[in-house]
Amino acid sequence: MCTGGSPSSNGSQAGDGNEAEQQQPATDQPELPQRTAIVSSTPEEILAEYGENLKLLTLNSQVSELLTIIRDKNTTRSDFKFYADRLIRLVIEESLNQLPYSDCDVETPTGAIYEGLKYRSGNCGVSIIRSGEAMEQGLRDCCRSIRIGKILVESDANTHEARVVYARFPDDIGSRQVLLMYPIMSTGNTVLQAVNVLREHGVPEKCIILSNLFCTPIAARTVVNAFPKLKILTSELHPVAPNHFGQKYFGTD
Amino acid sequence: MCTGGSPSSNGSQAGDGNEAEQQQPATDQPELPQRTAIVSSTPEEILAEYGENLKLLTLNSQVSELLTIIRDKNTTRSDFKFYADRLIRLVIEESLNQLPYSDCDVETPTGAIYEGLKYRSGNCGVSIIRSGEAMEQGLRDCCRSIRIGKILVESDANTHEARVVYARFPDDIGSRQVLLMYPIMSTGNTVLQAVNVLREHGVPEKCIILSNLFCTPIAARTVVNAFPKLKILTSELHPVAPNHFGQKYFGTD
Amino acid sequence: MCTGGSPSSNGSQAGDGNEAEQQQPATDQPELPQRTAIVSSTPEEILAEYGENLKLLTLNSQVSELLTIIRDKNTTRSDFKFYADRLIRLVIEESLNQLPYSDCDVETPTGAIYEGLKYRSGNCGVSIIRSGEAMEQGLRDCCRSIRIGKILVESDANTHEARVVYARFPDDIGSRQVLLMYPIMSTGNTVLQAVNVLREHGVPEKCIILSNLFCTPIAARTVVNAFPKLKILTSELHPVAPNHFGQKYFGTD
Amino acid sequence: MCTGGSPSSNGSQAGDGNEAEQQQPATDQPELPQRTAIVSSTPEEILAEYGENLKLLTLNSQVSELLTIIRDKNTTRSDFKFYADRLIRLVIEESLNQLPYSDCDVETPTGAIYEGLKYRSGNCGVSIIRSGEAMEQGLRDCCRSIRIGKILVESDANTHEARVVYARFPDDIGSRQVLLMYPIMSTGNTVLQAVNVLREHGVPEKCIILSNLFCTPIAARTVVNAFPKLKILTSELHPVAPNHFGQKYFGTD
Repeated sequence: MCTGGSPSSNGSQAGDGNEAEQQQPATDQPELPQRTAIVSSTPEEILAEYGENLKLLTLNSQVSELLTIIRDKNTTRSDFKFYADRLIRLVIEESLNQLPYSDCDVETPTGAIYEGLKYRSGNCGVSIIRSGEAMEQGLRDCCRSIRIGKILVESDANTHEARVVYARFPDDIGSRQVLLMYPIMSTGNTVLQAVNVLREHGVPEKCIILSNLFCTPIAARTVVNAFPKLKILTSELHPVAPNHFGQKYFGTD
Repeated sequence: MCTGGSPSSNGSQAGDGNEAEQQQPATDQPELPQRTAIVSSTPEEILAEYGENLKLLTLNSQVSELLTIIRDKNTTRSDFKFYADRLIRLVIEESLNQLPYSDCDVETPTGAIYEGLKYRSGNCGVSIIRSGEAMEQGLRDCCRSIRIGKILVESDANTHEARVVYARFPDDIGSRQVLLMYPIMSTGNTVLQAVNVLREHGVPEKCIILSNLFCTPIAARTVVNAFPKLKILTSELHPVAPNHFGQKYFGTD
Repeated sequence: MCTGGSPSSNGSQAGDGNEAEQQQPATDQPELPQRTAIVSSTPEEILAEYGENLKLLTLNSQVSELLTIIRDKNTTRSDFKFYADRLIRLVIEESLNQLPYSDCDVETPTGAIYEGLKYRSGNCGVSIIRSGEAMEQGLRDCCRSIRIGKILVESDANTHEARVVYARFPDDIGSRQVLLMYPIMSTGNTVLQAVNVLREHGVPEKCIILSNLFCTPIAARTVVNAFPKLKILTSELHPVAPNHFGQKYFGTD
Repeated sequence: MCTGGSPSSNGSQAGDGNEAEQQQPATDQPELPQRTAIVSSTPEEILAEYGENLKLLTLNSQVSELLTIIRDKNTTRSDFKFYADRLIRLVIEESLNQLPYSDCDVETPTGAIYEGLKYRSGNCGVSIIRSGEAMEQGLRDCCRSIRIGKILVESDANTHEARVVYARFPDDIGSRQVLLMYPIMSTGNTVLQAVNVLREHGVPEKCIILSNLFCTPIAARTVVNAFPKLKILTSELHPVAPNHFGQKYFGTD
């Protein structure tokens, strides 16, 4: 189980953002969805329900297989990490597609002009400790030398209120596009807190792209309502989030 | 410049597959396509022209940027490799989507059943030396411990005929799906030879998926005509292939 | 500049462990060592001064070059990360040599017996946020699927006292050997706090190996005095620690 | 078993360098060394026997464990690759220590001068196909953007004579230090051929460093006699080489 802050420290019960999300006791997550379909909704239904800023990864057979491996309780930890990393890279690739770009003609080695495009500079990543850190390597695999900040949100054991206890960003984050990384959303509360901190540091809502793997409909609704201009990229919308993700990925409780 | 086989060896002029492809002298590649559009055709035109077994990666802004970086003669070798690796991973991911799979229900940690799917086992990779080897790591990044074979095709300096001088495959390749890796196709001749060897080893044409980055219309036509059941995955169909790919990726002439 | 906890949060001024270490104002770090030799002491002097539990990486030309690149203010961030990662792997390799092992005979593919050895299971890593996280990938590159915990220590802006605000460990950490990761030690205070938390969780002092890159003589003295049974592995003992490490590695202030 | 060149090709029986090495039938490799000690000789004995240009990796417990895992017939292919990669990195690191360097003072971020050193530029790697290719990634992990060439040596099925059928080097290889990569040496014949080709391309013998994992005493003797100025770096000198290395690493016969 969780090994929180040292008893001798004054810190409150420190929790992984993951836990902050688990505010509904397990018993609230009904065993019903026994026959959970892989997709709960069509793209059209999702668009109607959540608007155009919530995007799902195209559900091809590779993505389905990755979701299956991650859901399977018999997957070894080593395989879990390998295939989660692969799904993360796909979500990051799609997230990067949301960034602004410009036309850019380049000269090829044979002297021809190639009419291409180029991303604008001034992007950065921010991971929400702990599970969001699992997505940092995927971002580095796509964006060489990108700056990556970090936020720690903890939930009060009694009030379930989430608050930020640690934040570390690039100095000029207010003028950057921010890829906020957090893989599992059950309630959305942790993300709400993280976005609030980003806004306090001058990041406009529309400059934030949330990269997520698993999202419940409740969490999607909560975040979309609170921040309609934020873009969300996820790979599955499903009433039960795989809350064991961080524990299995890092091997710590 | 090319540093071929040792003069003292009896080997014929050994060439990178890349060269086997460069059978048309550079002067044959007209400077005309000055204003080469990124996509030469719509998906519908490609389907009409080459059939359903030639597939292009969806051309989103990320892919366009990667193509631009690879085409740009001012890209540093270190950046070239980094972004080529990223494009390779995307092509490999799409290629893997062509593999056969089955439904597969798994049990989640909370005891629910998740209706997923699973790839059938029995796949392998085969890279065409040398440029195809650039795609091996991308395949390993997606498929843990996949077996990877290798083929060396060389072209006769006089007749331009391509022939296989080295091949090394998993023992049971005839019963596997094969991901054939070769990034640049100018004429398609090298790939024709490689596919012939695979068939001689018992691999049915329809069990071969060719993973490619850049393909000329001529090469696409040649390969599709010769092997209509082969599946081809590429990221760009363009009259001028970036023939400096292998040289820049590996840093050898 | 430091971007601390959100003003609206109740968290105290959250600091990277790095800062907790920077308790001596920069002016305390004299400009004197202008002609700082790479090694400040011989192995014999280090043994006499700090005892046998402080070990330095053998200073060969590769290690010297890595230290030079990391010290050089003109090194690009991308090179900095690449070469720091390489030095980290070397320190991790040496750290792992401190772990207990047993004889182990294995059978080779030709049926012969090979008299080898094997590490005992039950190891884990713990990184001190933030700079210690730079060492996680190096540990994963050496130990497949090793569990990695995390500690966040912050220093009070007024009293300079370090305290633990977040900790997350494998459940059974008390029965494991622990590789504590923290690259830069100026005062040693952050490490003292981290070791205290590990001990409160049942980890005996002698089961902790501290993996460090740069250590001042003061920090070495402090940690050795406080925990004489702890093992320390470092690559340089030098009066001025490269305190820009975390900032340059992650690109955040 | 081996899947050689296509029957329809004119190529002679193409073999992995590994096989070129296996010229002594297995029966020549006595089963005697049942109780093979991990080290066959002390460093002093090796120096007396082979001279100062043959260097063994320091045999600490990590290296012993890696050798054990690689020798063990029960090691999974996935673990085999992971731990072989780790041993390769260690051998590469030691090999790089043989390269020439110069003193180099740099300025640190605080304005102090750090007296460091710097490798001279102009190095490259050359791998012997196929098993040598397993060492390419290790070299790239240490030297960013290093150029890597390739040689294919095949042995005549009747005469056992090794000859070079393919070679591809950086253009200016004659003015570079060359790290020649080949992990398993049973007879040394393949390496002799490869070194001959390098010399024909203008590389002085003393500018070649052979990076090797496993070497028999016979092979060491053969190579040292033929090229006394060549430097050799290996991790084990043992009468029985693990000839299954390439097959297990790549998963192809």
